[in-house]
Amino acid sequence: MSEGIERLSVNQWTVRSLGVPELVEACARHGIGAVGLWREPVADHGLARSAKLVRDAGLRVSSLCRAGFFNRPGWLDDNRAAIDEAATLGAACLVLVAGGLPDAGPDSGAARGVPGGGVAGSTGGGGAVREGPDVGAGGRGGGGPERWKDLAAARARAVDAIAELVPHAAGSGVRLAIEPMHPMYCADRGVLSTLAQALDVAAVHPAETVGVVIDTFHLWWDPGVVAQIARAGRERRIAGFQVSDFLLQLPADVLLGRAMMGDGVIDFGPLCRAVSSAGYAGDVEVEIFNADVWAADPDDVLARTKDRFTALIASELARQMEELDAAAGAGRDRRHGEHRPRTRAGARRRERRRRRTARHDRGGDGHR
Amino acid sequence: MSEGIERLSVNQWTVRSLGVPELVEACARHGIGAVGLWREPVADHGLARSAKLVRDAGLRVSSLCRAGFFNRPGWLDDNRAAIDEAATLGAACLVLVAGGLPDAGPDSGAARGVPGGGVAGSTGGGGAVREGPDVGAGGRGGGGPERWKDLAAARARAVDAIAELVPHAAGSGVRLAIEPMHPMYCADRGVLSTLAQALDVAAVHPAETVGVVIDTFHLWWDPGVVAQIARAGRERRIAGFQVSDFLLQLPADVLLGRAMMGDGVIDFGPLCRAVSSAGYAGDVEVEIFNADVWAADPDDVLARTKDRFTALIASELARQMEELDAAAGAGRDRRHGEHRPRTRAGARRRERRRRRTARHDRGGDGHR
Repeated sequence: MSEGIERLSVNQWTVRSLGVPELVEACARHGIGAVGLWREPVADHGLARSAKLVRDAGLRVSSLCRAGFFNRPGWLDDNRAAIDEAATLGAACLVLVAGGLPDAGPDSGAARGVPGGGVAGSTGGGGAVREGPDVGAGGRGGGGPERWKDLAAARARAVDAIAELVPHAAGSGVRLAIEPMHPMYCADRGVLSTLAQALDVAAVHPAETVGVVIDTFHLWWDPGVVAQIARAGRERRIAGFQVSDFLLQLPADVLLGRAMMGDGVIDFGPLCRAVSSAGYAGDVEVEIFNADVWAADPDDVLARTKDRFTALIASELARQMEELDAAAGAGRDRRHGEHRPRTRAGARRRERRRRRTARHDRGGDGHR
Repeated sequence: MSEGIERLSVNQWTVRSLGVPELVEACARHGIGAVGLWREPVADHGLARSAKLVRDAGLRVSSLCRAGFFNRPGWLDDNRAAIDEAATLGAACLVLVAGGLPDAGPDSGAARGVPGGGVAGSTGGGGAVREGPDVGAGGRGGGGPERWKDLAAARARAVDAIAELVPHAAGSGVRLAIEPMHPMYCADRGVLSTLAQALDVAAVHPAETVGVVIDTFHLWWDPGVVAQIARAGRERRIAGFQVSDFLLQLPADVLLGRAMMGDGVIDFGPLCRAVSSAGYAGDVEVEIFNADVWAADPDDVLARTKDRFTALIASELARQMEELDAAAGAGRDRRHGEHRPRTRAGARRRERRRRRTARHDRGGDGHR
């Protein structure tokens, strides 16, 4: 097996036609050591049964997707349930999507006839010159019809909601992982758009309970991404690293704008090397929402995933490791902040230790 | 006429079925005092004839769209021509779109079979699990097949290209206006995504020659937008302010994701008040790319544009002015940086002066 492939984790949504048993069986056949699970198929198979199946197969659970959506009614109960599920599954983190603008109440987008309201579902067009409510009446002066569009308020709500979840997560040994999302989803999916924003939100909480997910699809454009990945490393906040490519052109449903690594526009090298330099040595999850990938044979998808992961991701992670080795060998002291020189031998030692303890140490942060 | 409507400028692409003569005639009929022109219809009617027509009608030209696209072959000659056209038209600024990843040469996206290559045109899907080039070979080690995806290099090229244009622009009395674009266009349209990035690029050049365009559609999600608008004011970089809404859901062609103000998700209040506080008292351009708007009767579009502009934009600009008046009346000294207290009477005086001199003072920066 090519070096580096042992860090590959397959997110269940990449092969979403597979239920938990089929996914576990396919991973065994392909020699894949970790999975990112989704709550819905886990519930379909049964939480306890899923946890046992995954554990008995020796698979690591790199993440449980997903909680958050703090703009939805009942979010608190739902998030607490998700934390319990993540604990049962021994997931390395629970992915939090901040949610968009509010979709509830009489002032909601849905109520005002905006296509899709606050909850994104299927694709739609619309929104031309048309008759609508009197947008002039009320304005923003205290609860007028435009109040649901208050982005600053939606961001503040996400901050408050995460704070409200922290005690339950800490008590359950579950690490919450805030996922900054591409700005094209800001209105309906995730009001936290940059890695800096996510790190700022995480910063007031213990690092073992609140981290971030770095997703190449969401963050490749972010002018601050490399510097913020380094910051995330210093602050020990990297709870997960997800990879997929960004399609050009975007499909009609932009939620499906992801692609297999190499089929889009992302230059994975700088991102992988930054994550490596930041000290993250955990699983790297391939998460692709793409109609054609979903329509393909899952075995073909997994074989291609391994090829592309080896060529575009593992190679860059290893390359950075070699450079750090060389720097350490030359006696250069790279110490700054909480960074320490990383050597390949040291990383292998730490990785072996991490794997031995991973199942019993859910609070571990994936950092070397 | 409602107060504030005098600052409305209609971007030609909002009513793109109209040529220059029809646009000029429609503005006269609707009492609209300014236009944002596009190079293609200006060329169709003839540059000198267009300039004379607009001038004789007493219309201000708030911008000429557009130059830039520094990733395209022949960009330098094309940009110099655009500068000359902006000078002839007396445009307040020439809008620069930075362009995306390179689309030329054997390593280009087009050559590698990526849908759409580096140049966005029509809509497409694709990009699933498919046979492709050996993405493992070469890697990024010096000119390999992934080199065209180097985003940092594309950004550096935009910086260099703008520097190369500055002398010609300064000599022609034309102000270049860098337009940060929504990150969903980062690959194919504009590698400068945030207002901070655009201001950083502008900062090394004289403010009268290089400014920025603040476009609500592109920037509403930007976590730093309000602070950066204030910075743009302090640094006297606001060359233009464009408004349109952001559709939920996005249409199949995301280039047409704009909507009439009020039909999307943007809360215009904070953005308008920030621009007002920053001291910008120039024209406010409505620029909408939307298939349904384009299919509608242009007179209906202009009537609706005036209504929505009054209700959602002019009202917020005026509201901020009132608050500043009140603060000035209370004797509070708001002086900080280059900001001075703005009073409504003072703004009107300055605006009259600006209009008198606008045609002879193309280097004017639109600030009070």
